[in-house]
Amino acid sequence: MSRFWSKLAHGLKPYVPGEQPSITNLVKLNTNENPYPPSPKVLAAMAGAMDADLRLYPDPSCGALRQSLADYVGLQKDQVFVGNGSDEVLAHAFQALLKQDEPLIFPEITYGFYPVFVDLFGINHRAVPLAPDLSILVSDYAGNNGGVILPNPNAPTGCLLPLQQIRELLLANPDRVVVIDEAYIDFGGESAVALVPEFDNLLVVQTFSKSRSLAGLRVGMAFGQAHLIAGLERVKNSFNPYPLSREALAGAQAAVEDVDYFNMPCQAIIERRQQLSQQLLELGFSMTDSKANFVFVEHERLAAAEIAAALRERGVIVRHLTSHPSTVNRLRISIGSESECEALVAALREII
Amino acid sequence: MSRFWSKLAHGLKPYVPGEQPSITNLVKLNTNENPYPPSPKVLAAMAGAMDADLRLYPDPSCGALRQSLADYVGLQKDQVFVGNGSDEVLAHAFQALLKQDEPLIFPEITYGFYPVFVDLFGINHRAVPLAPDLSILVSDYAGNNGGVILPNPNAPTGCLLPLQQIRELLLANPDRVVVIDEAYIDFGGESAVALVPEFDNLLVVQTFSKSRSLAGLRVGMAFGQAHLIAGLERVKNSFNPYPLSREALAGAQAAVEDVDYFNMPCQAIIERRQQLSQQLLELGFSMTDSKANFVFVEHERLAAAEIAAALRERGVIVRHLTSHPSTVNRLRISIGSESECEALVAALREII
Repeated sequence: MSRFWSKLAHGLKPYVPGEQPSITNLVKLNTNENPYPPSPKVLAAMAGAMDADLRLYPDPSCGALRQSLADYVGLQKDQVFVGNGSDEVLAHAFQALLKQDEPLIFPEITYGFYPVFVDLFGINHRAVPLAPDLSILVSDYAGNNGGVILPNPNAPTGCLLPLQQIRELLLANPDRVVVIDEAYIDFGGESAVALVPEFDNLLVVQTFSKSRSLAGLRVGMAFGQAHLIAGLERVKNSFNPYPLSREALAGAQAAVEDVDYFNMPCQAIIERRQQLSQQLLELGFSMTDSKANFVFVEHERLAAAEIAAALRERGVIVRHLTSHPSTVNRLRISIGSESECEALVAALREII
Repeated sequence: MSRFWSKLAHGLKPYVPGEQPSITNLVKLNTNENPYPPSPKVLAAMAGAMDADLRLYPDPSCGALRQSLADYVGLQKDQVFVGNGSDEVLAHAFQALLKQDEPLIFPEITYGFYPVFVDLFGINHRAVPLAPDLSILVSDYAGNNGGVILPNPNAPTGCLLPLQQIRELLLANPDRVVVIDEAYIDFGGESAVALVPEFDNLLVVQTFSKSRSLAGLRVGMAFGQAHLIAGLERVKNSFNPYPLSREALAGAQAAVEDVDYFNMPCQAIIERRQQLSQQLLELGFSMTDSKANFVFVEHERLAAAEIAAALRERGVIVRHLTSHPSTVNRLRISIGSESECEALVAALREII
């Protein structure tokens, strides 16, 4: 607290990201990082951009990266936006598109940053409870509202909405923007990017941090019709016109263009999620049908806090999110490498 | 325009950064980039950070970089903030510290982003005219206000306030934050960072883009007492908790630590500014006493727009800022390399 802070700064409840421990040799399954390295072509492209030209500003329009993304998904460059991680992209979407007189609606159990953004930007909002099985009922997101945002798959539940239900959501909100936050879409879902040409109210947000193995590079993107992208650009150019470094632009573009490399890690993580889920079932856990690179589990007997603490003692970190009573006894566990998942299961066998 | 934009997005007048031309072989003297490359140790450190660990999030607290900066200026780590370029750092300062009921005051002719930030964040504000010689009179910045922000040296004038006048400004505003934006301080000014231990209302913002030759890496920083830095952290953690990539953290840290390398480019630019100023005087230009890496000039006969267009035809780009009537006939010209300055002078000799 300081008498020099603005009222806004006093009132904020900042987001608390998952622990980034400085201790090495931990099995880190708490922030949904990809166990596979990025494409070797990413590292080569970054090395190529690492020279005396770092003295020069990067391209503020991020044109080459946006063109590569447009080509990859079959859209035009002016239908693509990029930013310094998908959190920044989401922040701009909240300010440019989702700040309306009527309440923005989002799921009650969802990405923990949405309630933070609405506080930061002073956005009227309403949280919609999930169904008892923790799924999202799209029929709850129609009617009078100032916009809709939801992750698909949802976090931390991992539950996926099929494209047909995203379509229903868009049809039910023709006058408001619907943001589909697809941070985890590449681990078993079907992207709503295919619906962009058809719906003028759809914005799809994605990230390089998960399926592209580039959490350390900080690049996120959004796809939508040009008028929505122009709204994001207005806010971006009123906040920070050069969000991506030369390294980030080069590395991200190489990641998009290396289509062959992309599929292997995603497939491996999907298969390992199935194996791990089976092992956890045998240990007395129940879980949602996650289509993300994590599982969201609850034990039949032991409390989540107790399991998380016992895992921590054994050098395994998982995420225990305590913000909602109905999920307070659940753990979100990232799908790590084969050896990390083995270490997790071995530690759980000891504990249970 | 789009019916889906927020009222806020409709009302913005985004900042227009200097042109980043895609044509090569241009003499680019329009965005105050440093003609010298960054320290070789920066490139080595970035290469060291370019590996499979890019799959992992960077340290959200940016601890190692902040410690290096603290050691460099003789402060503590909790008195240092870093962000994705000094524009982002400034944006957080506007929201966290400068958004008050009373008007924020800043010079009428100054960094063009300040009027953009006050619009974006809805901040009450008042612009203070410069003296007829384009200098800032600190006595104009006392009295009832919600805070003060000014660049030192000011941009685009290059005029420097000595530390004694910064001290007077701080003493005249004991209950409000005074932000000194020192993007250009290393080209002949004395930094107000030395005053941080003494003044609880001082925030000093700096950048790696100019004197550190790292415009392409996007890193900026702020120095102030811990309670002010904590205010910035609250906004940062409500907006984007991971603003700096692994590459940016490693490169910026190496830049700070290579103290020996740092002085040479700054000295060379200061000397070249003197030479260039003399040559421009001989060509009929008058100019402010710039202590930045640019000169701010007006010709006795030819109009600024005419000169800028004629230079453009000859492959030399300078910045013509048209926002204020009293400086509309001036050009801001960056101090480039020796050959770039020679090309500029040769082109001007042709034109004049």
